[in-house]
Amino acid sequence: MIAMKPLTSAPHQVVIIGGGFAGIQAARSLLDSDHSVEIVLVDRRNFTLFQPLLYQVATGLLSPADIATPLRPLFRDHPRVRVILDEAIGFDPFKRQVFLRHGDVPYDTLIVATGSRHHYFNHPEWEVHAPGLKTLEDAEIMRTRIFTAMESAELATDETQRRRLLTFVIAGGGATGVELAGTVAEITRHTTVREFRRCDPSLARIVLIELHDRLLSGFSVDSSTETLRALGSLGVEVMLSTRISDVSAEGVTVVTATGPISIPSATVLWAAGVVASPLGSLLATSLNRPLARGGRVSVGDDCAIPGHPNIFVLGDLAEFIPDQLDNPENRPLPGVAQVALQQGVYVGQVITNRLRGDAPPPPFIYKDRGSMAAIGRRLAVAEIGAFHLRGRLAWLAWLALHLIKLMQVQSRILVLVQWVWSYATWNRRARLITGQDPDQPLLISE
Amino acid sequence: MIAMKPLTSAPHQVVIIGGGFAGIQAARSLLDSDHSVEIVLVDRRNFTLFQPLLYQVATGLLSPADIATPLRPLFRDHPRVRVILDEAIGFDPFKRQVFLRHGDVPYDTLIVATGSRHHYFNHPEWEVHAPGLKTLEDAEIMRTRIFTAMESAELATDETQRRRLLTFVIAGGGATGVELAGTVAEITRHTTVREFRRCDPSLARIVLIELHDRLLSGFSVDSSTETLRALGSLGVEVMLSTRISDVSAEGVTVVTATGPISIPSATVLWAAGVVASPLGSLLATSLNRPLARGGRVSVGDDCAIPGHPNIFVLGDLAEFIPDQLDNPENRPLPGVAQVALQQGVYVGQVITNRLRGDAPPPPFIYKDRGSMAAIGRRLAVAEIGAFHLRGRLAWLAWLALHLIKLMQVQSRILVLVQWVWSYATWNRRARLITGQDPDQPLLISE
Repeated sequence: MIAMKPLTSAPHQVVIIGGGFAGIQAARSLLDSDHSVEIVLVDRRNFTLFQPLLYQVATGLLSPADIATPLRPLFRDHPRVRVILDEAIGFDPFKRQVFLRHGDVPYDTLIVATGSRHHYFNHPEWEVHAPGLKTLEDAEIMRTRIFTAMESAELATDETQRRRLLTFVIAGGGATGVELAGTVAEITRHTTVREFRRCDPSLARIVLIELHDRLLSGFSVDSSTETLRALGSLGVEVMLSTRISDVSAEGVTVVTATGPISIPSATVLWAAGVVASPLGSLLATSLNRPLARGGRVSVGDDCAIPGHPNIFVLGDLAEFIPDQLDNPENRPLPGVAQVALQQGVYVGQVITNRLRGDAPPPPFIYKDRGSMAAIGRRLAVAEIGAFHLRGRLAWLAWLALHLIKLMQVQSRILVLVQWVWSYATWNRRARLITGQDPDQPLLISE
Repeated sequence: MIAMKPLTSAPHQVVIIGGGFAGIQAARSLLDSDHSVEIVLVDRRNFTLFQPLLYQVATGLLSPADIATPLRPLFRDHPRVRVILDEAIGFDPFKRQVFLRHGDVPYDTLIVATGSRHHYFNHPEWEVHAPGLKTLEDAEIMRTRIFTAMESAELATDETQRRRLLTFVIAGGGATGVELAGTVAEITRHTTVREFRRCDPSLARIVLIELHDRLLSGFSVDSSTETLRALGSLGVEVMLSTRISDVSAEGVTVVTATGPISIPSATVLWAAGVVASPLGSLLATSLNRPLARGGRVSVGDDCAIPGHPNIFVLGDLAEFIPDQLDNPENRPLPGVAQVALQQGVYVGQVITNRLRGDAPPPPFIYKDRGSMAAIGRRLAVAEIGAFHLRGRLAWLAWLALHLIKLMQVQSRILVLVQWVWSYATWNRRARLITGQDPDQPLLISE
């Protein structure tokens, strides 16, 4: 039980749940603009994760520490920030308290930004066969699955079994799915060349399955077409307009226009769907409000919950529907880092203005600074407004942007060294099969 | 079931079990000197581990991939080397076969070098409370324990509990124990300074427990004395001539000359004892030979099992007792990397000479090229024959030697960047609390 600060005492206490893009940015924005507020940052993890590069950990190029920044050093020089490693398990909006597993924390203003998890469209039983990619643990599991499949193929004596072990299915044709498919193609076609004696990973079948009729549906149609072409040239089979109807230890079953197809596969990587953190539901329940689609929490144009001006929800957890004139279809903002970052800055400004007695800033407007996805070596698509880049130039822009966005200078240097090295040698030094009990058989059983 | 090569067919097949220092070196030695032999390298892991820096992974300085080298790329350009990711589970020395979990492999010559594990002196129940340090998984567990203890101390409301959470006990005063104690002192006194608001890790109690009457018993007495002094100046309590009689969730109980003492502690790190890999016992049984001390396998002066000239045992798994004239106390060679490396080179030569029909090389003689242990920042002890170094110069020598010994040039660059950065900032970027289920409470319960 954490000691409570009486509600009446100054200074104003802002509790931020979730140390992702939105939460960290909100804390920084508050620290930049106001010097009286106290901040409590609560996260279950002791680091903030740069998720856009998580697929490079999952494929053995980077190490976890390259994309994870410990939280405490970020706020070492800000004694008004208290970091708590704990999990929020409930809210009392009337007493203005957050319940944590190990105590309660009172707030004057609450910011909830706990993001999203991958999910399986009412088939949670698929998860064991098709790991998703949201945490460092997920990345380690995915890495171990990918490289264990190839090791098992080397030992397999049955040709059907070996084909199954060398079939990689990636579910979901968004940025993560495209990046995973391109990378698995690179690993099997190039990284592991001449490394196996009895199986030939370059014969691996890589299948990318997308429900819609094009890849990267958040991008323009020409970027989708370019991505489809690029993946094809890497030897990835792309199945569009295809629904996954079953995932099991044997592989996946998909439904296409011509009927169901079974794809025997030992390695199914899930990049198909996300659902908001369960905290959204707890928060909505405590406020007697309905949940929005995907478990998200509806917020108004100031990023606060309507009727609760001191509770903000940001990033993937929030359903923010921009002004209807610009948005006739009422589409919510996408679950991308940029939205979270901009909302973090904005909410810091809203709170600062309130505490200063200034007028509130104008409603939040998302400035889409563009989208990028890396498809493979030297290939990417990038869109900045009407300006569309492809191929090598887009790839260099992708590299530069992701390097700059890493929070630690040291990580930028280390990631750059690893990228250059991997580019020159095709090697992936971090392709470690770890996290399994070494006393247990490591291989996928036949 | 792996297809068998008929025993009568050329070329000669050497099976190496274990891809550590000894196994890798034996393979390289064979590849350098003889061009007809076929090599099968069997390991449960897909990488070889540079164990001397494992404690830096366990304390959040380096990442696993910095000290682990994937096996396959090492032998990519040697088609005569086949790497098998599998576990040896038995031997038939008469049929010359090794049984693996997923098949059998015939051998003409067998090299077994599966090393050692930490062990608990007939108290396996201590392991759950006192993790050891032999694998990357061990290092992750240790890292998570160390940093979780500090996070839990920040949340603790009871002062007794907080003291327990900030008490770190290191069992064993060899090189690993000394390095862990020095590093935990650095983390608590410097790395985390100003990072916590309610607890003060610089008040942490760090206790190093050693059964013998001096630290680093493999070193000279003056190095032991210097190490004791240096650890004292870092604020480490060293308890010599002290036996651990119990380890539980509450802490440890030790027996000193004056009687038993309880040390409440949430974090007990085990660096006290090793036992040979269980494969030693399987091998000895299959040959009807007794096991040597610590589960090791006795070998003759050619590193082969007496009476079985085609079965070699190397490194930590072997009990090699040097010639009695030089070694009146019949002390076996220590379980250090240098012994393993030199035995690997030697056995490669023995096999090559045999296949060529040359006379066998003279008996194996271990050349002790010196010992080193890092105590903390800018402090180490190093002994090269009669030449003893201490302090900063020894520390620089330690850094240089460990950098050079890393197998990949890329790792040397990356480790150097991380060392320089950590030296300048005291930060430890890889101090991630990972590997626990994030849906479960992360903290040590009170």
